[in-house]
Amino acid sequence: MTFSDKAVACQTRNNSWLCVGLDTDPSRIPSVFRHQADGVVAFNRAIIDATSDLVCAYKPNLAFYLADGAKGLDALAMTIAAIPRDTPVILDAKFGDIDSSAQGYAQYVFRTLGADAVTVNPYLGADTLAPFLDYDGKAVFVLAHTSNPGSSQFQDLYTGTSPLYIQVSRMANVLQGKAQVGLVAGATFADQVREMREVSPAALFLIPGVGTQGGSLEAAVRFGRNQSGVGPLINVSRSVLYASSGDGFAQAARQAAQKTRDEINALRGTSND
Amino acid sequence: MTFSDKAVACQTRNNSWLCVGLDTDPSRIPSVFRHQADGVVAFNRAIIDATSDLVCAYKPNLAFYLADGAKGLDALAMTIAAIPRDTPVILDAKFGDIDSSAQGYAQYVFRTLGADAVTVNPYLGADTLAPFLDYDGKAVFVLAHTSNPGSSQFQDLYTGTSPLYIQVSRMANVLQGKAQVGLVAGATFADQVREMREVSPAALFLIPGVGTQGGSLEAAVRFGRNQSGVGPLINVSRSVLYASSGDGFAQAARQAAQKTRDEINALRGTSND
Repeated sequence: MTFSDKAVACQTRNNSWLCVGLDTDPSRIPSVFRHQADGVVAFNRAIIDATSDLVCAYKPNLAFYLADGAKGLDALAMTIAAIPRDTPVILDAKFGDIDSSAQGYAQYVFRTLGADAVTVNPYLGADTLAPFLDYDGKAVFVLAHTSNPGSSQFQDLYTGTSPLYIQVSRMANVLQGKAQVGLVAGATFADQVREMREVSPAALFLIPGVGTQGGSLEAAVRFGRNQSGVGPLINVSRSVLYASSGDGFAQAARQAAQKTRDEINALRGTSND
Repeated sequence: MTFSDKAVACQTRNNSWLCVGLDTDPSRIPSVFRHQADGVVAFNRAIIDATSDLVCAYKPNLAFYLADGAKGLDALAMTIAAIPRDTPVILDAKFGDIDSSAQGYAQYVFRTLGADAVTVNPYLGADTLAPFLDYDGKAVFVLAHTSNPGSSQFQDLYTGTSPLYIQVSRMANVLQGKAQVGLVAGATFADQVREMREVSPAALFLIPGVGTQGGSLEAAVRFGRNQSGVGPLINVSRSVLYASSGDGFAQAARQAAQKTRDEINALRGTSND
């Protein structure tokens, strides 16, 4: 089963293109969790339980867990173990190394953690991606145009007749391997999402930037789907995780997830069951 | 004390510009270590003990430890604990995220691990570096031109009147913060090292690619020193770590390190004490 197959099955089952980012900051979770061992895991479990019928994927960001070292990695592994097996997991790690180092990162994400997909930084060239492509049924999302304010500094520079993020998108198109190759397209740059779709009709899109960052949900929906009809994975993190810091945080997270899912579906012209 | 101060003190004390990369692959260490718990740590300790009077820094690569998850991170922390406190430690992690994610990575490398410096990927723009620059006395080495064969794919693309790696070098020059900003300059691309030094006279250089990868030690020595006289950190990994797989591996590692240090010093015109 390819990553696409798994994503499509989950998108169909939950009528959702929403991905929830498990970027859990220990200082922002309800105080009841801050004072217990494995509080981050307990919080994440509550978020997953409250949203797993509303999403098409979860995307934990490695940084929030690695910050605490080995203990944090244990929390990440326990979090992934709490995600239903039929729901895709994307590790947002932005790995960018080569050769045996890239092999080590691929081993971590696909074997040690058992995630379904990973984000990868293209600056070192196609060498960076090769070891990840050896994993059958997995996906690699290449950072092409990211959602942060400073992303244009290098990504929008013209190199020849096209900007760098388009060169990166073109590279991703021609890479072959056992794993699928997708692109990260930040919704805060709607024109760039459109241009990426033009040069990459087949690529899966992972789209951050629509929640707290204020990116265009319209562009995410309009240009997110690939030519095979696979929808994008549209990520929100903080607006769901921290919808409330009180006792009702899980219900508030569910409401926030449902609201975004339904907004996406309204733009798609899909009824919400 | 700045990172430069610590590096210069170690370069002077050991008469060395050699950095040893602790990129320890559990499948390549002597079999006696492969069959014991914490075998990687025991191997690294033996390498450190055999070389610590010959180096100006150590550079563990996160990937080799993260591959094993939490257990690997414990091994990394124990390895760093075994390095003498007066010897700089650079974590080669090639982090490339922003905002609270970049803060998490900075927390890991500087607080949780207590390393002195880190490598960072510039693709997401200056946003990526900001959180690392808040740490006084630390250093951030920005990947400008890396040593791998595919590095030219994007790094050498012309953007306006200069290639991308020169744009990155220029950005690094103007960043201000509590931490110092240096550049990664792969010795496998000697012309690029020269050009980086022309536009970045003040930057510290971390130079990979001279060992197994066959880069130019001459270019590393000729262009590596900055205008203040701080020498480069010239990294070798495999040629030292795997100099021998037999009982005499530590002595062989010492000989390999000494040979490279002495070759560097011969090119510098410095006598070996």
